[in-house]
Amino acid sequence: MSETLSIYNTLTRKNEIFTPLYHGMVGMYVCGPTVYNNAHLGNARTFISFDVVFRYLQHLGYKVRYVRNITDAGHLESDADEGEDKISKKAKLEQLEPMEIVQRYTIDFHDVMRAFNTLSPSIEPTATGHIIEQIEMTKQIIANGFAYEVNGSVYFDVTKFAQTHPYTALSNRNLDDLLNNTRELDGQDEKRGRLDFALWIKAKPEHIMRWPSPWGQGFPGWHLECSAMSRKYLGDVFDIHGGGMDLIPTHHTNEVAQNVACTGQHHPVKYWMHTNMLTVNGQKMSKSLGNSFLPLELFTGSHALLDKGYSPMTVRFFMLQAHYRSTLDFSNEALLAAEKGFARLMNAIRLIDSLKTGAATTSNIELLKQNVYAAMNDDFNTPIALAHLFEAVRIINSVNDGKETLSEADKQTLKKLMHEMVFDVLGLREEQAINTDKIDGLMQMILDQRKDAKARKDFASSDLIRDKLKELGFEIKDGKDGTTYSIV
Amino acid sequence: MSETLSIYNTLTRKNEIFTPLYHGMVGMYVCGPTVYNNAHLGNARTFISFDVVFRYLQHLGYKVRYVRNITDAGHLESDADEGEDKISKKAKLEQLEPMEIVQRYTIDFHDVMRAFNTLSPSIEPTATGHIIEQIEMTKQIIANGFAYEVNGSVYFDVTKFAQTHPYTALSNRNLDDLLNNTRELDGQDEKRGRLDFALWIKAKPEHIMRWPSPWGQGFPGWHLECSAMSRKYLGDVFDIHGGGMDLIPTHHTNEVAQNVACTGQHHPVKYWMHTNMLTVNGQKMSKSLGNSFLPLELFTGSHALLDKGYSPMTVRFFMLQAHYRSTLDFSNEALLAAEKGFARLMNAIRLIDSLKTGAATTSNIELLKQNVYAAMNDDFNTPIALAHLFEAVRIINSVNDGKETLSEADKQTLKKLMHEMVFDVLGLREEQAINTDKIDGLMQMILDQRKDAKARKDFASSDLIRDKLKELGFEIKDGKDGTTYSIV
Repeated sequence: MSETLSIYNTLTRKNEIFTPLYHGMVGMYVCGPTVYNNAHLGNARTFISFDVVFRYLQHLGYKVRYVRNITDAGHLESDADEGEDKISKKAKLEQLEPMEIVQRYTIDFHDVMRAFNTLSPSIEPTATGHIIEQIEMTKQIIANGFAYEVNGSVYFDVTKFAQTHPYTALSNRNLDDLLNNTRELDGQDEKRGRLDFALWIKAKPEHIMRWPSPWGQGFPGWHLECSAMSRKYLGDVFDIHGGGMDLIPTHHTNEVAQNVACTGQHHPVKYWMHTNMLTVNGQKMSKSLGNSFLPLELFTGSHALLDKGYSPMTVRFFMLQAHYRSTLDFSNEALLAAEKGFARLMNAIRLIDSLKTGAATTSNIELLKQNVYAAMNDDFNTPIALAHLFEAVRIINSVNDGKETLSEADKQTLKKLMHEMVFDVLGLREEQAINTDKIDGLMQMILDQRKDAKARKDFASSDLIRDKLKELGFEIKDGKDGTTYSIV
Repeated sequence: MSETLSIYNTLTRKNEIFTPLYHGMVGMYVCGPTVYNNAHLGNARTFISFDVVFRYLQHLGYKVRYVRNITDAGHLESDADEGEDKISKKAKLEQLEPMEIVQRYTIDFHDVMRAFNTLSPSIEPTATGHIIEQIEMTKQIIANGFAYEVNGSVYFDVTKFAQTHPYTALSNRNLDDLLNNTRELDGQDEKRGRLDFALWIKAKPEHIMRWPSPWGQGFPGWHLECSAMSRKYLGDVFDIHGGGMDLIPTHHTNEVAQNVACTGQHHPVKYWMHTNMLTVNGQKMSKSLGNSFLPLELFTGSHALLDKGYSPMTVRFFMLQAHYRSTLDFSNEALLAAEKGFARLMNAIRLIDSLKTGAATTSNIELLKQNVYAAMNDDFNTPIALAHLFEAVRIINSVNDGKETLSEADKQTLKKLMHEMVFDVLGLREEQAINTDKIDGLMQMILDQRKDAKARKDFASSDLIRDKLKELGFEIKDGKDGTTYSIV
């Protein structure tokens, strides 16, 4: 079925049949987080979306090399090469060495990714781990005539590049409009053109993160790391490049320019994929509006806009109910509905094994399966795939209620489809939140039963309960103030 | 109590009062894993030992910067600068890019560390992330006259260094003996002296992991990364350096030589700490003897030498029952005893809150506390500390049985001591292996009760059970073939 996979390509603005550069193999690069703060929900959506892409491509039999970087240096506060390095600034605020900041928020990011059951990428390179490669690339771009050095910094010459290359192809903007919307250079500016951007930035004396280079002590520009790392691990031309759509006009546009200027390959990326933004009750999610919450706040419900907490799997399920190219709107109502829907889905899957089978099947299971794959093959359309999977849920419940019948062969097809799609491809799983509270609650019910039995002098029953608990690995002990239990 | 902490210093071969270089702050570097294979148990013991050091120093109020590296390049198969790079070799075997190997085994290592409940270090730098720093250090050592270049490789000149510095101070070996036990150089050798070692190694054409340098394409020698990274994050002189004792004669000896030759500081490390080896049934644990098991094999019991699996907390507890400088012998008997001991410890802690208090205490809780701290202050003597904590277990059980009494104040002291020492310092925790099986078992007991109630037409009881389960978050459904439950 892999022949029919189509992907919406931001570059061509249409759905295209997916044909990898090398038969059976896929190279995919996704721009990862800047680890100067807790992982935010927009990032989480992007990485969950590409996790499904990664999973589905593997499910189709491709060998995928999935590279997702960690930005641990060079990301300035503003896209216009102004302000401080985000990590150095945070390090000063928290009185920590920058790499302590990096460590703290890399761990937080991985924790969130694990909670969401995303697979680790094949390689997770860091910007600081590729300073040499970035310096080499800068040297090559200068040698090719598309960059210039001023006072220890190196800038990419967009004006020159745009004369011979479609600089705005990815964003589909008009170059003149873009120029008119960018502030004019003043006398202080080292840049020659308004759209020029830094490849290498001279370190001010107080800047902590710095490396020696042919242009003196400095650090790489943010856009450069992704060019250097995607080339190193995927080659000069590779299959898929992904990220949030906010990255299109500057970061990804400049990434392409760097790659082209360095290698001379006009199309370094075959398919560009971008995820859409998050909204809250219809409004754009943003820190300044106060309507942005962190994954952890969503899990615990500790944000004024949230009625309660929602489990990571509920949130993942909720996200997959929207297509990755659509905006995704958070509201308590929608999250509550997702919670119910997810529980329904899991309960149905749990029921499959116990379904009684008969001679014939009243539903068309093969068609159902085709519909699910058709949805996934249509640019990873998870909401449509889920709708078909809920048709399967309906059938399972109906067979369980004795209202429909299922042959043994179809039951096995259904089971395989549900397991592969829900667990392997969509990356959902049973919540592991079976907590001590639940054990405590059940145990209390049983100990109360035992107390009643003892009260009516039914010692056979009370001893039986003790023995059964022991079999399960619980030791109980009667004391003056009631019965306590321990896990042995 | 922090004034009294003493640490056994490998360099001076005696216990020394611990006085950090900067008041209230500690810099600690521990040699981390080479990520070309699954984390092994010897490494796990080393990192659990230093986790306790990290935790205890923090408990005493120190601000600790704990740096533990990841060796993702440069570690050759042999300490004599021979053989292939361990990661490149594994990459060829598995047909993966070296950084895919690094990613796989870094994740495995972190999973194991998490299972053992070790805290993440403050910074976890990688060798590939510090190539520039290693090149700069090599340049400085050459400039200082302690290294030389031959055909694109750079070697440390041990003969020259040893003329003015105590090269073997850490290992306490005789330099002449060492020379006599090292093979003679042959005509092919680029090294000038037998004990010379590589700082930078020229990459053969087929070598994948390579970087440009003043000496051509190559990669750093293994010892160099630790010198470069400890200096970068902890300074030219720092407090504690740790690792397994197998690292003393070559890796740590050469690390010191590099630091001294580069910075001119004669004592880069104030306290050297080393963990001892593992044995199995009295025999050295080693791959070639077939008696070495991985942490995962230990957890699951999937190794011929193991009767059953032992939980990560049982293994951690077991390891802490030996002092880090003693060998640790694995046997089924000892692990079984540890499993029982750990359960006893946890059950006692769980009991504390429910203990009835009286006017007087029959035991001396304050003395008990002093004994625990005295043990920890004596070079982190966890087995003695645990012995005293088991005296606390005895007291708790005795009070619970009504045989001893405890005042409210002493109960609070005891509770604080147990929580801080067992959870915060020793890093033990309740096993989270409360699994679905246990829930299933308890639920079945309750559903059987309900079935009995229905059979005797006691519908009030059966409905009450349903309602109570609903309160706990379980929904039950009666079907033709029995009752099923779902988690809502």
